[in-house]
Amino acid sequence: MHGYAHLFVPGPTNVPEPVRQAMNLPMEDMRAPDFGAFVKPLLDDLREVFRTRTGRVFVFPSSGTGAWEAAFTNTLSVGDKVLMSRFGQFSGLWVEMAERLGLRAEVVDVEWGNGVPVADYARILGADRAHGIRAVCVTQNETATGVTSDVRAVRAVLDDLGHPALLLVDGVSSIASIPFEMEAWGVDLAVAGSQKGFMLPAGLGLLGVSEKALEAARTATMRRAYFEFSDMIRLNDTGYFPYTPATQLLRGLRVSVDMLLAEGMENVWTRQNHLAEGVRAAVQAWNGCAIVAAPEVRSDTVTTIRVPDGVDAVAVIRTAYERYRTSLGAGLARLSGKAFRIGHLGSLNEVMLLGAIGAAELALLDNGARIEAGSGLAAAITHYRKAGTAQQKAA
Amino acid sequence: MHGYAHLFVPGPTNVPEPVRQAMNLPMEDMRAPDFGAFVKPLLDDLREVFRTRTGRVFVFPSSGTGAWEAAFTNTLSVGDKVLMSRFGQFSGLWVEMAERLGLRAEVVDVEWGNGVPVADYARILGADRAHGIRAVCVTQNETATGVTSDVRAVRAVLDDLGHPALLLVDGVSSIASIPFEMEAWGVDLAVAGSQKGFMLPAGLGLLGVSEKALEAARTATMRRAYFEFSDMIRLNDTGYFPYTPATQLLRGLRVSVDMLLAEGMENVWTRQNHLAEGVRAAVQAWNGCAIVAAPEVRSDTVTTIRVPDGVDAVAVIRTAYERYRTSLGAGLARLSGKAFRIGHLGSLNEVMLLGAIGAAELALLDNGARIEAGSGLAAAITHYRKAGTAQQKAA
Amino acid sequence: MHGYAHLFVPGPTNVPEPVRQAMNLPMEDMRAPDFGAFVKPLLDDLREVFRTRTGRVFVFPSSGTGAWEAAFTNTLSVGDKVLMSRFGQFSGLWVEMAERLGLRAEVVDVEWGNGVPVADYARILGADRAHGIRAVCVTQNETATGVTSDVRAVRAVLDDLGHPALLLVDGVSSIASIPFEMEAWGVDLAVAGSQKGFMLPAGLGLLGVSEKALEAARTATMRRAYFEFSDMIRLNDTGYFPYTPATQLLRGLRVSVDMLLAEGMENVWTRQNHLAEGVRAAVQAWNGCAIVAAPEVRSDTVTTIRVPDGVDAVAVIRTAYERYRTSLGAGLARLSGKAFRIGHLGSLNEVMLLGAIGAAELALLDNGARIEAGSGLAAAITHYRKAGTAQQKAA
Amino acid sequence: MHGYAHLFVPGPTNVPEPVRQAMNLPMEDMRAPDFGAFVKPLLDDLREVFRTRTGRVFVFPSSGTGAWEAAFTNTLSVGDKVLMSRFGQFSGLWVEMAERLGLRAEVVDVEWGNGVPVADYARILGADRAHGIRAVCVTQNETATGVTSDVRAVRAVLDDLGHPALLLVDGVSSIASIPFEMEAWGVDLAVAGSQKGFMLPAGLGLLGVSEKALEAARTATMRRAYFEFSDMIRLNDTGYFPYTPATQLLRGLRVSVDMLLAEGMENVWTRQNHLAEGVRAAVQAWNGCAIVAAPEVRSDTVTTIRVPDGVDAVAVIRTAYERYRTSLGAGLARLSGKAFRIGHLGSLNEVMLLGAIGAAELALLDNGARIEAGSGLAAAITHYRKAGTAQQKAA
Repeated sequence: MHGYAHLFVPGPTNVPEPVRQAMNLPMEDMRAPDFGAFVKPLLDDLREVFRTRTGRVFVFPSSGTGAWEAAFTNTLSVGDKVLMSRFGQFSGLWVEMAERLGLRAEVVDVEWGNGVPVADYARILGADRAHGIRAVCVTQNETATGVTSDVRAVRAVLDDLGHPALLLVDGVSSIASIPFEMEAWGVDLAVAGSQKGFMLPAGLGLLGVSEKALEAARTATMRRAYFEFSDMIRLNDTGYFPYTPATQLLRGLRVSVDMLLAEGMENVWTRQNHLAEGVRAAVQAWNGCAIVAAPEVRSDTVTTIRVPDGVDAVAVIRTAYERYRTSLGAGLARLSGKAFRIGHLGSLNEVMLLGAIGAAELALLDNGARIEAGSGLAAAITHYRKAGTAQQKAA
Repeated sequence: MHGYAHLFVPGPTNVPEPVRQAMNLPMEDMRAPDFGAFVKPLLDDLREVFRTRTGRVFVFPSSGTGAWEAAFTNTLSVGDKVLMSRFGQFSGLWVEMAERLGLRAEVVDVEWGNGVPVADYARILGADRAHGIRAVCVTQNETATGVTSDVRAVRAVLDDLGHPALLLVDGVSSIASIPFEMEAWGVDLAVAGSQKGFMLPAGLGLLGVSEKALEAARTATMRRAYFEFSDMIRLNDTGYFPYTPATQLLRGLRVSVDMLLAEGMENVWTRQNHLAEGVRAAVQAWNGCAIVAAPEVRSDTVTTIRVPDGVDAVAVIRTAYERYRTSLGAGLARLSGKAFRIGHLGSLNEVMLLGAIGAAELALLDNGARIEAGSGLAAAITHYRKAGTAQQKAA
Repeated sequence: MHGYAHLFVPGPTNVPEPVRQAMNLPMEDMRAPDFGAFVKPLLDDLREVFRTRTGRVFVFPSSGTGAWEAAFTNTLSVGDKVLMSRFGQFSGLWVEMAERLGLRAEVVDVEWGNGVPVADYARILGADRAHGIRAVCVTQNETATGVTSDVRAVRAVLDDLGHPALLLVDGVSSIASIPFEMEAWGVDLAVAGSQKGFMLPAGLGLLGVSEKALEAARTATMRRAYFEFSDMIRLNDTGYFPYTPATQLLRGLRVSVDMLLAEGMENVWTRQNHLAEGVRAAVQAWNGCAIVAAPEVRSDTVTTIRVPDGVDAVAVIRTAYERYRTSLGAGLARLSGKAFRIGHLGSLNEVMLLGAIGAAELALLDNGARIEAGSGLAAAITHYRKAGTAQQKAA
Repeated sequence: MHGYAHLFVPGPTNVPEPVRQAMNLPMEDMRAPDFGAFVKPLLDDLREVFRTRTGRVFVFPSSGTGAWEAAFTNTLSVGDKVLMSRFGQFSGLWVEMAERLGLRAEVVDVEWGNGVPVADYARILGADRAHGIRAVCVTQNETATGVTSDVRAVRAVLDDLGHPALLLVDGVSSIASIPFEMEAWGVDLAVAGSQKGFMLPAGLGLLGVSEKALEAARTATMRRAYFEFSDMIRLNDTGYFPYTPATQLLRGLRVSVDMLLAEGMENVWTRQNHLAEGVRAAVQAWNGCAIVAAPEVRSDTVTTIRVPDGVDAVAVIRTAYERYRTSLGAGLARLSGKAFRIGHLGSLNEVMLLGAIGAAELALLDNGARIEAGSGLAAAITHYRKAGTAQQKAA
């Protein structure tokens, strides 16, 4: 296999060279006298990425799934009622976890391609006069369908009703990529993972936690040990961890956070939108293909593409991988075989995405799709040019 | 700061160059068509390191502490009785975790410096005619005191009594370093971490699980999600994982497992003993210093060294770090200020350990210890020479 | 700057990941007892890349320019007559070097876009009955114009005439990329550099030297020291070097040679042709652009593209670099401002080249070229598809 | 082989981690629009390392041997007379190069273990009333014997006599390690290599060149091309190079120069002396061993150690390498078998050198030396302690 492998799954994302360089290091003592002086500002700066001033950020050696568990077990008790919705593979898995952990999930099922059902949430929460619902869960970015939900609208519902439930957000594939305002939106718990917008290998689960959620953690009785917030707080306050942290990833995280903050979160979000628009332009130019997400909820981090009838999306992905050295995301669960995904989050640029689009065109053509060769690329070029011209004028 | 930093804590350990090279890589798709062909033989080969043919090995993105939790939550139910012992910081933390998770721990406290109280275990298990004790826990290597416990003897007790309790072993700082025979010793659950004998960065929790423990997992009702064995089994059987694995570490693990198996586990154990003997010779030559562990239970992976009266072990460690660029392990809990530790597990050789001993001598002298300059080094040299001569003769 | 930088200059080329990993290493002693056991097979295997069984390969710490100098100084004497031709920047510089070193160069100037003037060479050599011409020089691949010369034809001329001149070939941007047969073509001295087909950083000059050239070196009186073959031979025969070699690059070279030989040189050449055809298809689809090289001499390692009148090629390159993070090659000397180059040698694949073509389209459009957006990409896609289909059938 | 390899040859030296990280990078275009902005300040800053304000520094892709050649060929003409001295392998090789290049070397042979014969130089230069001697050569640090010559004294001789000869210094193993003052000492040409005090892999030859030497280069007629200063000047003035530079090493050089200047050259020199004293203390404690260099000329970068009669130094080195994973320097030429060398230049610290001394003790003992185990280590510890105490008091 020649040349570089091309990675366009919605996580893990491409690791920037400075981050890769920073992780090429010998091991170190996580109890060294000066280690705390490294950790404390890092945890502080992470709050800027999560956009919270009054909350805290925890970093666990785990995947994002572990961070989901940390969110539930620290703030809720067995039997607690939580309001959730299911509109894709990951929102569905989160519901499953809630149930396994003994929560009573009230679940709204939504057609795939749409996001959090704000009106349903409003109705249900409005009916919950006794405030039996302890937490409301929103998957901000459903990675399976490429849908971005309106977290702010859910907050507004809660505020309008004066409902005290915690607002829990799965931001694994959104935070550090698309607009997320933990404090302004009143999010109580936000879950992220290292291998998406943070541009790192998988292995860190990150959580932004509001003061209200920390307060809830003091009385929540769900059993927990590895993910216990109070241990983290006690040690983090000294710059250390309750058990061996993944120091290699933390050193990389230092660099990726520096990169994000140097660019400015708003600029990160704008860039991701710019890049995503090019991908969507390409898909819309492909005859017979369709974007799974409804127009108003399309994600800037991943696009899920329904392939034409008669084309096998699994074969498309396999061809892209084996023949063109390009990893595209699979259609998951009910979309298996019917869709593939292009992840366009993390460290990317226009030319990389032309590669992604080109690889998809090649693989679609190879598998019988009657798209016009170059049609998606031409649309993307036209978008990137136009956007570029706009940027140039502004500059 | 000039020259290389020297790392002699009992984990993280020094990462061998081939492992470091293997982890210097771009990210990859953990759902790629050929990823399973990488994962399956890796999981198989791990069984050779754990020395089990009939069991399985699980690899979680977590620390060893997470693997402890996985061991308990998958095989036990809230309220289950477990037999444990406490003779150092880590055996103590394990007890604490058991209690947090709702287990009823019957705890034998043992003087630090000693290992698992086999006689006490025999007495308690013998009295447990109703087999209320569901699991017996052994910390094979107490990293705080540098003590190795006799796991095999506990197995013998269980066998003699025909007691059906599961045998759970914390092997975080022993597996892949000192003799451990999962199958021969009838261990049901063995916990390890990537950053010790596996010579990797922290971030992977590994578990060896016997068929009996897997059977227990089918009925155990403790709530669990992230660490659920059955999800792991279902996906691992296809070569994949239930959530994003730490692929960078897995690529490193492939190389470290190759290195271990190429050397042969018995040879690894012999080498660790050879290196440890040199350290112990050095400590015994230092006037006023003492090895915390009782003579018959001294660990080949870490030596805990009591400093002379009047010397502050915290200052010794700080001097070693700041002035001699050398990380020594701290004395933990009741040994804080009174002892320091030299980790001698993982990828090491004689000359590295001369550096460790030399740094310790320098830092001890700097902090008022009346040891003779060079005394420990001379003893180590003499040991390494002698051992070398013996090896030469054999070769 | 986000995402990866894209490198499509005709050297340095993209370093494959296994080579990069191999160069991520601590330093070593180039006089170590086992270093020779590493060097000797490496030098042997290099002969397979050069396609010589009876010759030797030397590796100097230098650029390709240094290897040019080594070729002249070791085999010729001041005042010797050499036959050369000039049809681009690099063939021109080689002439300049010959003159600086005191050789009398008989130079045939050829219009840029063409290759070695075989008929002129035949005429001149035919007239040289006294065999005053001691060496005949051919730039196999003129990197400035993207032209491949016919080395074999020059050999035929020499053979037909029974002319004893040495045949010297500049293969810096051809060897390890396009067909080169040192022994079959009777090449006496072939010059290569690490940063092209060998897929390494710059820093090694490589020379394939025939027995006849080694014989000439015994009597050649041009002054030389650093590049002295006889020192190299004496030490290389033991596996060592007369002065400190660039060990880091040698470790990388070991891996890149392994990759080349595992693929097979013929397959390397076929792949390069396949990739180049896609680039040429794209250029031909761009309205107003033209390939500088004449149709029958187009190089499979680099394409030089004349931009439409009124477009500034310097600006195109700058836009590609600054706005699209893509390095294209500059038009050199008389082509400055009129042409740019796409390097397509080394470790590449179709999707990478779609990126190169896309970046060029974007930058051309940004600078006023009236090409159709996506036109080059569509042509390349069509070629890569077709070729792929053919390959599939064959497989 | 377990643990890290230990490198104590007098070059290549250990590469610091930040330098290694900086060299772990993809390739780049050495003609990129912003490459010059990287090169120019780097070349400027190198002048601070060479300690010249009015001179220039050139960086060639070559070894230090190539830089020797550059020094001669650019400033002298065939037949020119040069004054040289020979007191070790490297000063001898430099003489040999001068002769090969057609210079008439007047050579003073000095007993190995001593340095440049200042009195002889004074006598010869004094007798050279016609100023036929065009250059005076000094090997500042003879790496074979571990001798540092008095460059300043030679300058004083020239000044006293008003002799106009150029002063050429081989500083390959001294510059960036021990006191060297190009401008204050009136050095006209100073040669260095990347793999010594610059703490990089081999592959760069560096030259500091005074205005007077640049003036001489305008009329010197020795044939040269690859190493031509005027090409370098023309391109370096724009921030570029006349041919492909070794960009990977240049990126590393940027970091190593930053490290040197951040520390301050005087502090670098002091540190090297401090570390060297520990090694010398160790050697003097070894019964039957002796330092080859005379007491007043002992080098702070390398110590050459004569082994006791009856001990084979070649075997000592081989044992250190094969059994203790430690590279010691070989005794060269007439010292082969009789001496070994410990390189103590570059990025080192006390604990690393304890490893070096320990490995040497082990290997000496293994090969029959009747030294006392630990004797050298004790002496080194005592020195490092004392020096440390002094430093502490001063701080």
